[in-house]
Amino acid sequence: MQPEQRLQKLKALLAEIADLNYASALLDWDQQTYMPPGGAENRGHQLATLQQIAHTKFVSDEIGKLLDDLQPYVSQLDPDSFEARLVKVTRRNYEKETKLPVEWVTEFAMVITAAHEAWAKARAENNFPHFLPHLERVLDLRQRYAEFFAPYEHIYDPLLDIFEPGMKTTDIKAIFSLLRPQQVELLRKIASRPQVEDSFMHLTYDEQKQWDLGVEIITQMGFDWKRSRQDKTLHPFTTSFGWGDVRITTRLFANHIASALFGTLHEAGHAMYEMGSHASLDRTPLFGGASSGVHESQSRMWENLIGRSLPFWQYFYPRVQEVFPEQLGNISLDTFYKGINKVQPSLIRVEADEATYNLHIMLRMELEIALMENSLAVRDLPEAWNTRFQEYLGITPPDNATGVLQDVHWSGGMIGYFPSYALGNLIGAQLWERINADIHDLPDQIRQGEFAPWLAWLREKVHRHGAKFEPQEFIQLVTGSKVDPAPYMHYLEQKYSAIYGF
Amino acid sequence: MQPEQRLQKLKALLAEIADLNYASALLDWDQQTYMPPGGAENRGHQLATLQQIAHTKFVSDEIGKLLDDLQPYVSQLDPDSFEARLVKVTRRNYEKETKLPVEWVTEFAMVITAAHEAWAKARAENNFPHFLPHLERVLDLRQRYAEFFAPYEHIYDPLLDIFEPGMKTTDIKAIFSLLRPQQVELLRKIASRPQVEDSFMHLTYDEQKQWDLGVEIITQMGFDWKRSRQDKTLHPFTTSFGWGDVRITTRLFANHIASALFGTLHEAGHAMYEMGSHASLDRTPLFGGASSGVHESQSRMWENLIGRSLPFWQYFYPRVQEVFPEQLGNISLDTFYKGINKVQPSLIRVEADEATYNLHIMLRMELEIALMENSLAVRDLPEAWNTRFQEYLGITPPDNATGVLQDVHWSGGMIGYFPSYALGNLIGAQLWERINADIHDLPDQIRQGEFAPWLAWLREKVHRHGAKFEPQEFIQLVTGSKVDPAPYMHYLEQKYSAIYGF
Repeated sequence: MQPEQRLQKLKALLAEIADLNYASALLDWDQQTYMPPGGAENRGHQLATLQQIAHTKFVSDEIGKLLDDLQPYVSQLDPDSFEARLVKVTRRNYEKETKLPVEWVTEFAMVITAAHEAWAKARAENNFPHFLPHLERVLDLRQRYAEFFAPYEHIYDPLLDIFEPGMKTTDIKAIFSLLRPQQVELLRKIASRPQVEDSFMHLTYDEQKQWDLGVEIITQMGFDWKRSRQDKTLHPFTTSFGWGDVRITTRLFANHIASALFGTLHEAGHAMYEMGSHASLDRTPLFGGASSGVHESQSRMWENLIGRSLPFWQYFYPRVQEVFPEQLGNISLDTFYKGINKVQPSLIRVEADEATYNLHIMLRMELEIALMENSLAVRDLPEAWNTRFQEYLGITPPDNATGVLQDVHWSGGMIGYFPSYALGNLIGAQLWERINADIHDLPDQIRQGEFAPWLAWLREKVHRHGAKFEPQEFIQLVTGSKVDPAPYMHYLEQKYSAIYGF
Repeated sequence: MQPEQRLQKLKALLAEIADLNYASALLDWDQQTYMPPGGAENRGHQLATLQQIAHTKFVSDEIGKLLDDLQPYVSQLDPDSFEARLVKVTRRNYEKETKLPVEWVTEFAMVITAAHEAWAKARAENNFPHFLPHLERVLDLRQRYAEFFAPYEHIYDPLLDIFEPGMKTTDIKAIFSLLRPQQVELLRKIASRPQVEDSFMHLTYDEQKQWDLGVEIITQMGFDWKRSRQDKTLHPFTTSFGWGDVRITTRLFANHIASALFGTLHEAGHAMYEMGSHASLDRTPLFGGASSGVHESQSRMWENLIGRSLPFWQYFYPRVQEVFPEQLGNISLDTFYKGINKVQPSLIRVEADEATYNLHIMLRMELEIALMENSLAVRDLPEAWNTRFQEYLGITPPDNATGVLQDVHWSGGMIGYFPSYALGNLIGAQLWERINADIHDLPDQIRQGEFAPWLAWLREKVHRHGAKFEPQEFIQLVTGSKVDPAPYMHYLEQKYSAIYGF
């Protein structure tokens, strides 16, 4: 077989696996949007069947042999070519999936199903001991997972690599140890100033009008509805069933307008990233995003760097006042802008503002690492959480439900994911600095509702690459440096010194 | 391996295939309800992949060998037991699928994709010659299909067997040659009487209120929303993703209240049949219905035998008047009842009343048979259609768009399906006669909005069997005789003699 034929064969096999994964994603989307309650048992079977078939097909000897046989051929190509990257990324995923014994995969699936249920109950009842043995089992499985990838520099590396390919614990620690004191210091400065007003955000806002407003705003920003739609779910998310169908969800609360508004912007950022993959990447492992962190950089750019900026609201706020005259007619742009950027240390990560968010992440990551290293026992986790929370955020959770039990991730076995959220903030700010260097009058454009050049830049520099590059390669390619906390801190200092006047 | 282990193995393999088929059904449902336009290409790939995997798994030697090895074991069991029927029905399907060469399957898929597009264009442009070569190719493939099942009594038999397992062309011809003159005579009698009034059905009815009313009515009839939901589509349908999730769709027209009202009842009948399968049949080939015709007997019972009956509206009509006081406040129950049962020969099958519907079916079936036998050429089909239409219904279609091109079936290769619609009417009336013999005061119960005993009868006698029996076996089991047109004609005579006074 000629290399070109081998490549065609590989692509055909990968396309079939992509179809199975897209189908699974639709089954999951439906479960979270429209499925009647009676469908849950069948849906579990269907997802298990599709995932098992996709896994079996992917770890086949046929794919392994094609990858081996193609290696000499792609070694002669431009290493950034589609072909070379396809083989590289597929091999990376292949090696990960083939290293996992089927017994581990089966046990992990069972353990996280039980752990998820136990966590939901434990959180509802503020009962950490109920979750404790399940978390111990999850940790044990994740430690065994790491061993499949031995030797490693650090036991947390193989986990991190699931979400941020190529990044090491030592890199993340270096970044965060630079960042943490600066974030704490910033927070201290803000706390020393008079607080801003945001009670108007919690008046009663008609939910349909909130929905329509969010749709209107992202439409004006260039959101591609031909390849998307929005639905309501308990927790907002973005999901893809291929290049032509990338969907978002949102949630609405009558007395919390920020949730739908910034949630819709956030998910639109994720979705536009996926839709912006070059069409030729569809149905290959190169479709999608470079990493969870780079993905988050896109959502946070829509939500925060753009969506919580003054120029953005200079353009959109009159329209928002028109839609909600009773609630906002007497609220000035300045008050609104400050209100949506209010900084206040709080208990819950998903409600945290830009200045405190990364602190929520860092404490989680530090605890994860300690658990993985066995330097912290699960039974001591609540106390460690509370101590660190007081240290970083100046408050102590009144209970475990609003403390250590608040996030779903650990119950789903997602240890190693949290750093991606913070990396997303950092990468977003690095990209933001770069865009503003390339498009000198970007704030003026945004102030006039002109989003096309900004979006064209993202498409060209970020989106079209899909998952071709590892996150560090990618950020180096676009900005000339690796992940760096300085632009984010610079952004926060500038923004909050203006808002809080220090 | 012990027979019990073999049976477990067979069930596990069939469950996996069922999961794939349920997933395909969800992908199709999504395509018809919520998919953004950009998703079509990806969706085509996903469906092709899932169907190809399901087919390959089903026709495997492993399943063939299990069926062979299990034969001696199940031969000793009660032939109506789950195990015996599972092996029997699976073998029937297995023999059908394994007889089809993969080249035929591939060619057929390509031909019907092109034929469907050509048909849509031909219908829109009233251009039969555009569809002609495509229909010739479909027919050629269906004739070749029949040859895979040679020897046969009649070339139409293998097609009919897809939709009505075990039934032969000779059976159908016998039934319809009894039925046709009686239907034509009934129509003549009705036409000799003054027409009833139904213009009030075409006033403007708020679509949301139509929707809510349909939901309210089927809810009162016992529809199980825990395992279902309703959505809007261009063409209404019912689809299953397992025992716990069987969905219906409807469509709404502001000036045609019958469409949503009776459409919702119709689909609810289909859905309750599937949901009524014994839960143990789920994820096996025994889940679902005995045949397309038996399925149609259930939908037509909800829509017509119940839904267009006087007792039903004696109960529900006051509520309908309450919802639509402007449109129906001055319309008496008698006028309403007669209006929804108006008989008028018309061009379009899907809009036909109970008295003319079967005539639409019979002419199609006769033409299909003639085409399959090569006693009619495709180029002569429009003329044959129009001649027969005049003969049976007393009108001649003004063009092919509202004549021979109106139905989607042939463009999708569905030759042999039409008889099921008429069989559904007949079987429905046979079951109706039986229920009324078993529940003496059924009309009184319905007049009081009491549907539980009726539904319990259907569940016990019809639904729970799923696809265990062939249609003739099934109707024999429940009513004591095979498919028989007499009860349907008796029902029509009684109903319309009262309405039209003859």
